[in-house]
Parts: sequence; C-alpha cells; structure tokens
Amino acid sequence: MRLLKEVLEKIKPSERERAIVNAVTREIVEIAEEEIEKKDATATPRLVGSIAKDTYLSGDHDVDLFLAFPLEVPLKELKKIGLELGRSIGERLGDYEVAYAEHPYVRALYKGFEVDIVPCYNVKSWKDVKTAVDRSLLHTEWVIKNINGRNDEVRLLKKFLKGINAYGSEVYVRGFSGYLTELLIIKYGSFMSLLENIEFLGKSKILDLEGWLKREPEIAYKTVERERESPLIVIDPVDPRRNVASALSWEKFGVFYFKAREFRESPRIEFFFPSKTKTGNYKALLRKKGTNLVTLLFPKPELVDDILLPQLERSAKGFEKSLRREGFEIFDLNWGYIEKAFIMLEVDRVERTKVLLKPGPEFLGERGLDFYAKNQKVWIRGKRLYSEKIVKESIVDVIEELLAKNQIALGKNLREPIKKVEILLNFVPPELEEEAYLFLSKEKWNIKD
Amino acid sequence: MRLLKEVLEKIKPSERERAIVNAVTREIVEIAEEEIEKKDATATPRLVGSIAKDTYLSGDHDVDLFLAFPLEVPLKELKKIGLELGRSIGERLGDYEVAYAEHPYVRALYKGFEVDIVPCYNVKSWKDVKTAVDRSLLHTEWVIKNINGRNDEVRLLKKFLKGINAYGSEVYVRGFSGYLTELLIIKYGSFMSLLENIEFLGKSKILDLEGWLKREPEIAYKTVERERESPLIVIDPVDPRRNVASALSWEKFGVFYFKAREFRESPRIEFFFPSKTKTGNYKALLRKKGTNLVTLLFPKPELVDDILLPQLERSAKGFEKSLRREGFEIFDLNWGYIEKAFIMLEVDRVERTKVLLKPGPEFLGERGLDFYAKNQKVWIRGKRLYSEKIVKESIVDVIEELLAKNQIALGKNLREPIKKVEILLNFVPPELEEEAYLFLSKEKWNIKD
Repeated sequence: MRLLKEVLEKIKPSERERAIVNAVTREIVEIAEEEIEKKDATATPRLVGSIAKDTYLSGDHDVDLFLAFPLEVPLKELKKIGLELGRSIGERLGDYEVAYAEHPYVRALYKGFEVDIVPCYNVKSWKDVKTAVDRSLLHTEWVIKNINGRNDEVRLLKKFLKGINAYGSEVYVRGFSGYLTELLIIKYGSFMSLLENIEFLGKSKILDLEGWLKREPEIAYKTVERERESPLIVIDPVDPRRNVASALSWEKFGVFYFKAREFRESPRIEFFFPSKTKTGNYKALLRKKGTNLVTLLFPKPELVDDILLPQLERSAKGFEKSLRREGFEIFDLNWGYIEKAFIMLEVDRVERTKVLLKPGPEFLGERGLDFYAKNQKVWIRGKRLYSEKIVKESIVDVIEELLAKNQIALGKNLREPIKKVEILLNFVPPELEEEAYLFLSKEKWNIKD
Repeated sequence: MRLLKEVLEKIKPSERERAIVNAVTREIVEIAEEEIEKKDATATPRLVGSIAKDTYLSGDHDVDLFLAFPLEVPLKELKKIGLELGRSIGERLGDYEVAYAEHPYVRALYKGFEVDIVPCYNVKSWKDVKTAVDRSLLHTEWVIKNINGRNDEVRLLKKFLKGINAYGSEVYVRGFSGYLTELLIIKYGSFMSLLENIEFLGKSKILDLEGWLKREPEIAYKTVERERESPLIVIDPVDPRRNVASALSWEKFGVFYFKAREFRESPRIEFFFPSKTKTGNYKALLRKKGTNLVTLLFPKPELVDDILLPQLERSAKGFEKSLRREGFEIFDLNWGYIEKAFIMLEVDRVERTKVLLKPGPEFLGERGLDFYAKNQKVWIRGKRLYSEKIVKESIVDVIEELLAKNQIALGKNLREPIKKVEILLNFVPPELEEEAYLFLSKEKWNIKD
C-alpha cells in the first residue's frame, strides 16, 4: 500500500541512523565488557529490547543493556555486584542515576542515548527465570529467531498504536507492549493482515504461538483461566505461565479494534500521525452539556504509578458508587495526578432535593417492624414500607459527610491524603484545565467523534 | 375494655333506632310483597346486608332488598321482571332511579333510608350461583347462623377500619368489606382477639372457616393458587371458588396491621374517631421538600370506577417507568378524578441535563458494531460502549415526546383522552389543592407521622 510506504519512510531508521545506532551500542557493550573484566565479574553484557530486535522506530534510541549473571550467583550478590558494575559503566558513559524496579538498576545517558543497565540471570529457559527482567533475554532471542524479516511491519503496528494512543504497557496507558506488537506481527505476518483479522482475534481471544496448550497443558490452561477476564490472552512463547497481553485493558484493545476497522475502510496517514488533540474551554463545555464537574484534589502519596493509579481508579469508583446511592447520577470518572492527585466526577447536578425517598423492607416480619419503629413518616406501597429522609443538599456536603462516616471505598494509601481533600465545583486550577476539557469532551477516550 | 364500651355507646344503634329500622324495613318488605303479588311474580323479597345481619352502625341505614327468583326462571326474564318489579316497588317507596351493576337494579329513598332493590336467584348452594349478587343471600344466612351474638364486635371492627380509612371493598378503597369483617370476628371471636392475632394472620395468610381445603380440595386449592399474591386469602364459607379478601390491597392490609399493633400498645379513641385529616398548603410543602409536582389533567372517560381506576393506576405506573428511564427520579404517584381525571407525579426535578449518558452493548460483536455505527460520540468503559445523547431538558417536553412516540404504557381507555392532556408544573387547579397536599404530605397513605 502506497500509504504504508509513505509511513515507513518517516518511521524506519535510515541507513545513516542505523549505522550510528549500531556504532553507539557497540561502544556501550565494549565499555561494559571492559568494566566487567576490570572487576573480574562473571556477568555477560547482553543487548535486549527494540534495538537488539531491530524493531525500533526512527529517533527512538533507548538502549537496554542487560548484565547476565550465571544462575549459580545468589540473588543478593547479583544485586550488589550488578549495581556496582552498573555504576562503574554509568560513570564511564557519562551522566547516570540509580533507578528502582524489582531491583535497582542504572540509567545513564551516552551520546544522546538513554541506556538502562539492568542486572539479570542468564536464563536459557522459563524454568530458570528468577527475576521479572530475566525473561527479556528470552524474548529478544525468540523474536530475533522468528521475526523473519517482518521488522518493518512491527514498526508500522507500533506507530499505528502510538498514533491511536494505545501503545505502551505502563499502568497509565494499559495498552500494547512492544513485545506484544512483535508477537502479533509474527502471528499474522503483516500489519494489514493483523488488521484484517482483528474481529477473529477479538473472538478467539487466545494466541499460542509455541503450542504451550499442548506441550504444557496444565500450566498453560492455568494461565488461560487466570487471565480469562482479559481482552487478549497471548501465551508467552518463552513462558507458558505468562499472558503477554496481561496489562492490556479492554478500553485500549477496543480502541485498536475500532481504529483497525476504520483504517481498513479508509486508510489515512492521520492514524499514524494524528494532529495534536484539540483542546478547548471546559467551562463552556459544561454549560453546553448542562452537566457539572466535581474535582477532588489531594496530596499525591509517594508511590509508583503501578500502585498509585489503580488505587486512584478504585477510589474514583468508590465515589461513583456512594454518590449514586445518594441520588446523584455520575456520568463519567477521571483520575490521575500532576502535582496533586485528582479525581474528577462528571455529575448531573450539584444540589439534590431536600427529601430522599427511602425504600424499606416488606412490612410483614421483623425487618418491617424495625423499619417502622426507626423511621418518622412511614407508608406502604405494595408489600413494602417506604419513608422519606431529610438529606444534605449540596454534593460538597454529601461528599464530606460520606468521607467523615467512612462510607466510600478508597485505595488504602489514599485514606490519609484524602483527609486533606479540596472539593472544587465546576472549577479547576489552571494546570488541570486541559485535563478537564479532555475528560468532559471525551477526547481522552473517544473512539469516534 | 372501658374504651371499647365508650365506642360502642356511640356506634351501636339504640333501642329506639333499632325499633325504627325494624319497622321501616318491615314496611319495605311488605310493600315489596304486595307488588310481587299484584304482578303475580314468583319472586320472594329477602333482606340481606348489614341490617339483615344486625351488624350495621348507628346511622348507617342502607337497606338491601333482594328479589329472589326461582332457579328455573331464565336470566333474561329475571332481569326484565326484576327491573319492572323494582320500578313499581320504587314508585311505592318514593324517589327512585335505575342503577347498573352486573344487571340493572333500582335504588330508592324511603323515609330517609336508601333502599337497593336487586333481582337475584334464590340459590341454596354455591353450585347454583348464576349472577354475582346471588351469593349475598348465602352470606347473610351464613353470618346470621354463625355470628353467635358477637354483632357488637363486628361493629367495633367496622368502625376501627373506617377510622383508619381501610373499610370498603370499592376499587377506590381496596380495603375490608363488611362481610370480611364479619368473618374475621367469627374466626377470632372478638375485636381485641383479632388485633392480638394480626401477626399470625399476616403470616398464615389463609382462613378457611368451612374447611373447604379438605371438603373440596381441588377447587379450594385453585382459589389459593389464583390468589397467592393477595395479602389475605379467606375462602368464602359459602363458596370455595372465592377469596372474600380478593379486593383487599397490601396497602390497606398493612395499614390495619400497623394500626392494630399500635392500638394494642396504646388504645385511644382517635383510632375510631380520627380528627379530620389535616390539610395545608401544597406549594409551601413543595418548597420545604425541594421536590416537584407534575400533574396531568385530562378528560375523564365515561367508565365505572372498577374499570377507570385500575387503568389510571396502570397509566401512572407507565409514566413512572418511562420517566425513570429518561433520568427523572419519581418519588411517588397519585391518581383519581374529580371532574377531570388526573395523575400526579412527585419528581426530583423538572429540568434535566442536556446530555444523557447512553450505555451501549459490549463492543465485540454485531451489536457493538451497530451501536458504534449509529452513534456520534462513542467511547469504551470496560467491555462496553458508551455514548451521549442530547435530550429535551424540560419534563413537559419529555412527557409530550414520550406520548407522541407512544412510549408510555397506558390503560387502553385512556389513550384517547390523554391526547388532550394538560401538564401542570408545581401548580394545580383549586379543586385539586387538597388532593395535592394529601398526596405530597403522605397524609393520604401515611401509617405513622
């Protein structure tokens, strides 16, 4: 397709770029080897990630340098020596800092390339895997062995996913990881072939490229069972215990599903290179829709995204549920952080009636007598008792009361910070104005407009 | 109990009143006999109802005079001769008019007594019953035979039920009929004993004074099965096919249930002689509650209550359901007629947001694609699609639109008149002001305040 060629011209690294990348990565590996020798360590430097697999996009030069230790090295020693080694390599490369994932690693900058130096075990099989990063070695090997020249197809898919905002397995994206895009291309042969098979993929839901369901049925079926709520189950070719797509959300899979169909119908370059998201005035939008925006602002606890964002999501849903019970209609939810953490609720109104209908139990029996005894005004409709209750009118009062009475399900690390919550009605501070607009206009999630 | 004696003094007909009632009814029967003889008809005059059973309240002197024809007389002839006879008796008594139930009868006024002259068959058993009124003869006989001097207990119960607004089996009351009160007293022996057994009655639910469940199990169980949604099943001692309490609503049974318990706790004369229902300003009440009143006014079709009121109820519930789907919260419903028919809805608000959330199906599959194709703005939450729709804001517009699109379940005889509906917001014409107050204050149904 003409269009895909045009896209590739923009995203495929040129020969010149490739030469630079190759030279720089070779230098990095050499520096690593020298430092290993100098320290007399047993590690082997290994390039992994998209540069190693030759599936990187032009301009995207993150180098993943793994230091692979023999399996016999105890984990404690691996961490210690790995970090020391990382530091001395980082020192040689230039600027560096220590970062933390499952264990500490070094992040350095060298000739404009970001270099992650990560200690791991030199595993040969999934049975050897001891730390989360070990598998990367196997992934890189497997992709290199199976990609069979379809590297550019991976590039097209990656760029397409970036364009529709569904690329990345981070918790704030919950989209497609690089490895997942590679597996999808290896399975379907090409970008267009994947797009043409998207309905089938959605329905069949399970990909098993190495036949683990036959080779290791017990383990592989356990994976399928555990992941049955996921939109896709891609059994990791190098490890039957893992769903490569486990971080993928239904939302991002859905975006891909519809955009793939749309692209098939009318392929346009904008899918790959979208014009910058439109922004606008959230206050005008509120007036136009007739809805209201409640924003909860509170101090952001010191937590990594993987912990914080799911807790924010859980809390936002807690507010939704409790407020719905109180008679407010919640149209949509949003959460995140900039400096402070925030939860946004789009609601139908900010004032409710002073009196709420209070449905009771059937009147015959103990529960009926109890309700009758406990309430002021009581009447019967059908077999059931009803009463009224006088309630707070403003949603701000209602939220404060719910929080004071502990009647909202919150993420556990948010219980303290939320005590300092500010509740804003139809107003957000300047730094959240764009977020508010994207939320209310649905630009943030919209798959069609 | 002192209190009950006090009540009886007020409601039991005095000797003087009894003498007058007896004399007047004797005169009426004699006049009937004369007219029958004059016309050479085969009918026998029979007194039925509370005067015949001596369970009437002081001042309540409705005379039910039945003209009982032999079973051999064809129904057509019974109706014709019955009406002729009724007219000539009515003529002798004074003012009269022809009224209609299952068949025409005569309603006359004689010395201040209202006299219903009703043709029927002279049945000896339920197997003979041909018209709905025939059973009255059997009821009267059965009560006279079984009441065993507990007539005053019936009077107490009737007055109590009147006081709490639960007496009468008419469709606009749906409470306890006179016959049902007599059976309850015959079963429980006394007014207080019934009150003490009210929980047991509510739980056991079935009364079978003549043991029909054993004597005619097939027929009696069919009655129980058919009536299983009723609050009480009292198998008619004279007819196993009938539930004497079939007209009783859960609401009125519930009122009796709670008032009985309350009376046991603290007997007060007000149960029998309530102070006139308080009335007040419905507009002030609306302001106080923060709710809104929507009144639908439309021409009353020429229908008897038995047909009209259930259709009004059904339509009111139709409005409730449709408006709830449109995002309005309906607190309570009321219906009835004065000159015009009306339906009142107490709602949370009369304006809604311009945009309504429109939940769609799961996105994988035909229904998802369809929803996606048909809607403008579409996004995904979890597995489901969502969209927004722009809607009418005013409840008046919404109701008019729903009616125009035929999206409200209405009683079939109301479909035409409702085309002329007037929709009033927080305002009713003067003749409905009291009704509006009673509705909004719950005085109309309240069992506790």
